[in-house]
Amino acid sequence: MNVLIVYAHPEPESLNGALRDFTVDRLRSAGHTVRVSDLYAMGWKAPLDAADFLERDAREPLNIIAASKHAFASHTQSADVEEEQRKLMWADALILQFPLWWFSMPAILKGWVERVYAYGFAYGVGEHSSRRWGERYGQGVFKGKRAMLIVTAGGWETHYSARGVNGRIEDLLFPIHHGILFYPGFDVLPPFLIYHTSQLNEARFQDELSALGARLDRIGETDPIPYRAQNGGDYEIPSLELKAGLSAGRHGFDIHLAGDDGS
Amino acid sequence: MNVLIVYAHPEPESLNGALRDFTVDRLRSAGHTVRVSDLYAMGWKAPLDAADFLERDAREPLNIIAASKHAFASHTQSADVEEEQRKLMWADALILQFPLWWFSMPAILKGWVERVYAYGFAYGVGEHSSRRWGERYGQGVFKGKRAMLIVTAGGWETHYSARGVNGRIEDLLFPIHHGILFYPGFDVLPPFLIYHTSQLNEARFQDELSALGARLDRIGETDPIPYRAQNGGDYEIPSLELKAGLSAGRHGFDIHLAGDDGS
Repeated sequence: MNVLIVYAHPEPESLNGALRDFTVDRLRSAGHTVRVSDLYAMGWKAPLDAADFLERDAREPLNIIAASKHAFASHTQSADVEEEQRKLMWADALILQFPLWWFSMPAILKGWVERVYAYGFAYGVGEHSSRRWGERYGQGVFKGKRAMLIVTAGGWETHYSARGVNGRIEDLLFPIHHGILFYPGFDVLPPFLIYHTSQLNEARFQDELSALGARLDRIGETDPIPYRAQNGGDYEIPSLELKAGLSAGRHGFDIHLAGDDGS
Repeated sequence: MNVLIVYAHPEPESLNGALRDFTVDRLRSAGHTVRVSDLYAMGWKAPLDAADFLERDAREPLNIIAASKHAFASHTQSADVEEEQRKLMWADALILQFPLWWFSMPAILKGWVERVYAYGFAYGVGEHSSRRWGERYGQGVFKGKRAMLIVTAGGWETHYSARGVNGRIEDLLFPIHHGILFYPGFDVLPPFLIYHTSQLNEARFQDELSALGARLDRIGETDPIPYRAQNGGDYEIPSLELKAGLSAGRHGFDIHLAGDDGS
């Protein structure tokens, strides 16, 4: 497989740097072709702004959707954005690797999403009718590709458990898993997580590497998180609310899992 | 009151620009003193990196927590970060205003949080014992201050409803409300939200301004979201899991609300 790792940590000689190097080596040893977008090393421009759209009429106010649509369609996006889009189309699998900062991805990676996910590419795709609401959430440009997060967190695992004070990790990651990866069509694999990073001794580090290696060895076969397809009949259109008979009477992110039974 | 607005949109002549100007005028008319951090206009540096720590030994690998702790304690943070920290200490209320991009705040604002929230300032504060786990989630440097989000979203309100495909807006905003604002001590007011921004005609725009004005008029009195205090007896220490008798048998972000009864 072709694997793209988008990596967001400023220090190569860090836990994240070690995990990144391990991941690259493990995947290559298994015969995969690997490319890495090391956002800090690339000096990735984080903010989405008018400079991203090369042909924009600077006398007009910036309308981001219109500008993105035009730039993508007319091949007048900034070169760094186009290059990342090419990498995504090349990849069979995408890994986003980052430390959890303030319960989400680092700003530099969020800016990669905002700038690379152009209108007409990752959103604003497909027809809107009584049967479908664009190609998203189970459809889209990345359909058939896989994605997975590798995330480190300073807090303890119990702090991120179902009743932990930080919120359950699956819920904290839902905006990324569902909103950023499933939205444009990726099959989203369960994340690989390391907690309590300040107290990671050599023995646990080796255990974590073993566990990560086992996950990477099965990157092509691991079952994805079974999110419901938006246009598969489970949601009302155009309200896009889950039909009343499914996960009846409940709310919360879990209702968007196929087969959710409220347990 | 002293009100700090941290604003993240690249185009002044936009809905967000109009909402920002309205907010500033309304608050000033009511006698408040208002300052605005217009992140795009300031050219705010989004990525947290080694350059933020002026005295760091560049021969050593960057340890972000250690570097942040030292820089904050020794007044060797970068000047832009110190200035934002001073504004926060000056403010009685903080407003974060932004368009919802990929179900979270724009990268430039996330980078404001990451860089301004230094160790020893917004985290890494207070003792860890059998009765408390730092000063956070209801304690912290911003205790006694209020915070509120003003957020625009392109999607429809039903798409963000309790059973909407995007996920319930309260859940999507939990990592910001609870994880970024309540964590260092803010009382977090309910957000002000505008949906379906592409179809905002003049009549609805005026209605939204009226509703926003009413919210701003009561910024000093509105009841905050009643999150449970971490060190108030509701959580086990050090696991920081909600005690078994509270919101018994349940999970999801709502269990962190005082008085949550599962309804």
